[in-house]
Amino acid sequence: MPFKSLDELRAACLDLPAGSDTAAKAVASRQDTLTKPQGSLGRLETIAAWLARWQGRDMPKLDRVKVFVFAGNHGVTAQGVSAYPSEVTVQMVANFAGGGAAINQLARIAGAELDVIPLDLDHPTGDFTQVPAMDEKAFLAAVSAGYDAVTKDLDLVCFGEMGIGNTTPAAAISAALFGGGAEKWTGRGTGVDDAGLKRKVVAIEAGLKRHAAALADPLGVAAALGGRELAAIFGATLAARHLGIPVLLDGFVCTAAAAPLARLHPTGLSHTIAAHVSAESGHRRLLEALGLPPLLDLGMRLGEGSGACLAVNIVRSALECHARMASFAEAGVSEK
Amino acid sequence: MPFKSLDELRAACLDLPAGSDTAAKAVASRQDTLTKPQGSLGRLETIAAWLARWQGRDMPKLDRVKVFVFAGNHGVTAQGVSAYPSEVTVQMVANFAGGGAAINQLARIAGAELDVIPLDLDHPTGDFTQVPAMDEKAFLAAVSAGYDAVTKDLDLVCFGEMGIGNTTPAAAISAALFGGGAEKWTGRGTGVDDAGLKRKVVAIEAGLKRHAAALADPLGVAAALGGRELAAIFGATLAARHLGIPVLLDGFVCTAAAAPLARLHPTGLSHTIAAHVSAESGHRRLLEALGLPPLLDLGMRLGEGSGACLAVNIVRSALECHARMASFAEAGVSEK
Repeated sequence: MPFKSLDELRAACLDLPAGSDTAAKAVASRQDTLTKPQGSLGRLETIAAWLARWQGRDMPKLDRVKVFVFAGNHGVTAQGVSAYPSEVTVQMVANFAGGGAAINQLARIAGAELDVIPLDLDHPTGDFTQVPAMDEKAFLAAVSAGYDAVTKDLDLVCFGEMGIGNTTPAAAISAALFGGGAEKWTGRGTGVDDAGLKRKVVAIEAGLKRHAAALADPLGVAAALGGRELAAIFGATLAARHLGIPVLLDGFVCTAAAAPLARLHPTGLSHTIAAHVSAESGHRRLLEALGLPPLLDLGMRLGEGSGACLAVNIVRSALECHARMASFAEAGVSEK
Repeated sequence: MPFKSLDELRAACLDLPAGSDTAAKAVASRQDTLTKPQGSLGRLETIAAWLARWQGRDMPKLDRVKVFVFAGNHGVTAQGVSAYPSEVTVQMVANFAGGGAAINQLARIAGAELDVIPLDLDHPTGDFTQVPAMDEKAFLAAVSAGYDAVTKDLDLVCFGEMGIGNTTPAAAISAALFGGGAEKWTGRGTGVDDAGLKRKVVAIEAGLKRHAAALADPLGVAAALGGRELAAIFGATLAARHLGIPVLLDGFVCTAAAAPLARLHPTGLSHTIAAHVSAESGHRRLLEALGLPPLLDLGMRLGEGSGACLAVNIVRSALECHARMASFAEAGVSEK
């Protein structure tokens, strides 16, 4: 377990590599020689530079792309915050193993490996309206599981999650980190009705009040209001930064899980791209608060890393254009 | 040549198959049984239904996807409307053949075939500030070339273009079809400066005035103000509809090329999806006027079918989820 105390984890969160300016500039220079009007590939050009910066390579590569789906169960479901029963978390993990979920299909099209990591599903987190979701030990174990999952041989990683009830901790974390009250961040998740939406808001307000003393510290927020799969995404996002691996974030839950890193360090999420903005209303607000413009906006709200995975071929396209287009000189094309 | 007169072409434009409601409904029904909250795949779900409707198959397929890039030269470049010399059109066609352009890389990642069709590059269209861009014979020849290029064995087609100066005809067509004046539709294309932008506006205003008598007829607009590659895209879009092949439209020029079909028939472009909205300012307005919400918004402004091609893997993802996800019953996952 890489982190044996909150202090160790905090120190790791403050010790973040800056990325390679040299590599990013090398990409920008090459882009300007390729057979297209300068800048005309839009975000494909900045994506190529982003890959270079965070991989620390003038010519990035995407030989190994992996999607991690972390799964956890949530005590706060006792408050009636989800349209589905908690048993669906473990059932969906079985569905991932059987190849029947959306993420299985999306990972195949993306040419990405898929790793599903269930986190102690038989032991839901504490109901944060009553107790902290995780004590320090449980929180560090989940963060460490995520941190250890990411290996340095990967070139790009996507993070996703499965956990019935987990838009409630995501909204609670967002409210704790960025303020504005529970209602601002709370949406219908997998599809709760008006009464369920009201129960979510009430539960989040109760959690914010009960744990107020812990919430000045972003790690305190993640432990008291989060969940195991969210903590694992936090750890995995940190590991990717330490290992020089660019990250595609998925939807609301994934972004909220990673958000404490941006509160601990001003460039904490600079190695990530928000792959999409989901239909869950809090997500657009959260991306705005984090200054992360989404790549895709397709009205999705599934989780599982589905939006992140859908962006992989856009990143691949960016790299292929960068790596394999001819220059004006090579192709004998006249410049302006 | 399929169209020997404007009347024949007009008749073909008014005789459009309606698509299969049955197939679209079959997709929607199956989607609601798959292991995800209903509607949570957002546009991926509607894309699957769109494929089914226009292919006329309950289970669509994407075995053969093809990108067509039509190329033409433009007499209106005499008015100084482009940042690049006209010789770049033929040079870029050679670059496509050599595999060095952006579209070559994007087509490979999309798993799409690429067909580049140069249209009489040695004979630019007429300068529409002085004469019609094409007379009836030249226009019908270009439309027919596009129409004949699309074959019924294709499952999805992307249309793109290459033609130095061709955002000027695109803006002129948009202004003629939707009004609002030249300035509203005119942008910097490949990157003209302020003086060049002004020259574009002046040229378009001159064209609108000179050909005013022809512009009540959408086919008259396409002939008088368009270009050979635009006319070919018009013909190819029509052919795809007749053959039951869904279409991904590319950027401003491609959309403007197809737009007359929407003016001739109220559902003329229902078998198309706007794959992206480009950074060329007129494109967003044109998509709004046509009621076509773009799939991607990545600040691209290259043409070549680049934006359309980038959307292919999103369409593939939509189909794979639809075709291969497990149902709640199959996976043993509890419903609400």
